[in-house]
Amino acid sequence: MSRLQKSDAKENFWKLLRYYESQIRPTYCSIATSVITLNTLSIEASQSKFLGKYRMFTQEEFFSDDVLGVIDQNDVAQRGMSLEDLAMVLKVFPVKVLKYEGLDFSQEEIRDLIISALKNPNQCVLALYQRKELQQEGGGHWSPIAAYEAESDSFLVLDVARFKYPPVWVNTSAFINSMRTVNIYNKSRGFIIIEKIFADSE
Amino acid sequence: MSRLQKSDAKENFWKLLRYYESQIRPTYCSIATSVITLNTLSIEASQSKFLGKYRMFTQEEFFSDDVLGVIDQNDVAQRGMSLEDLAMVLKVFPVKVLKYEGLDFSQEEIRDLIISALKNPNQCVLALYQRKELQQEGGGHWSPIAAYEAESDSFLVLDVARFKYPPVWVNTSAFINSMRTVNIYNKSRGFIIIEKIFADSE
Repeated sequence: MSRLQKSDAKENFWKLLRYYESQIRPTYCSIATSVITLNTLSIEASQSKFLGKYRMFTQEEFFSDDVLGVIDQNDVAQRGMSLEDLAMVLKVFPVKVLKYEGLDFSQEEIRDLIISALKNPNQCVLALYQRKELQQEGGGHWSPIAAYEAESDSFLVLDVARFKYPPVWVNTSAFINSMRTVNIYNKSRGFIIIEKIFADSE
Repeated sequence: MSRLQKSDAKENFWKLLRYYESQIRPTYCSIATSVITLNTLSIEASQSKFLGKYRMFTQEEFFSDDVLGVIDQNDVAQRGMSLEDLAMVLKVFPVKVLKYEGLDFSQEEIRDLIISALKNPNQCVLALYQRKELQQEGGGHWSPIAAYEAESDSFLVLDVARFKYPPVWVNTSAFINSMRTVNIYNKSRGFIIIEKIFADSE
């Protein structure tokens, strides 16, 4: 039996695959990851210039006036988004945004938080990690986590740089270490959990 | 056990999912389907304006000079591509292009041809079908086929209009009928099989 079949923490796996896409620019990993996870949670996108009556978040139309109110598009094009940046941007959308700085939590706490989110159909996990810790080419990188499998103790990461890497199972401990690193401004990487908000629970 | 697990004709299923993406314009179903399948067969794309040293086919950069040599971009934007159009366009790439007009073949022949392609790691199937035959909203539509499952006698279609429909298992007979229809110019719909060409077999 494959790891995927054995996994009991992959509530949104098929929806993530439905919306999984490649980042369209070298620094758009945060945007690709946001678009995939917002679509997976069936958050309603604004009207599109291109899709007629249909609605879906896209990287091409991500920089709405609301998003531009909190972040500069050129900054993102030049250096991508930090954990703090993306948490701020995601608050523009009707989702609950839980930001976790990797260095604030233990290995065990992070594993438990992510597994719990992967079992919740109303949550998605967006991870910001240091590729070098995983012996991958590159630096800081955002991608969604799609599943956890206990026997191998590993996470399935849907790498959004499809032109570089396919989806990959990574050892939990190595992956958590890659989120417990700092960027060039000495700010912790980590992960964000977004949760769909239902009107009747507000 | 799920249909997917039971399927023994899904050789490129995971690679197709790695490259599966939504059409970015209402008439770009043919282009999305081409990009997904060319990437799945690891055909080398031209250099990108956006992806640095990395290469991958994208809808945004699909209309290269070579493609524009055989088809007009405005025509595609206005009315999409017929079976004949896309076969012509795909010949621009280093793949073998096998075009099948649905009305030229029996149900059984089409089923066998597609199943055989789904078992071949060097082939992909691009289907042009009439959505109405499947009780779906819309008209003629291109998408890749990702798997066949015998017990339920059904194909898995990776619908590229993600903003309308998720991937769906469709009854083989209904799906083949939807390819055995004609467009407004009385030309048969159908399917194309592309096959990777290896230098040493030329």
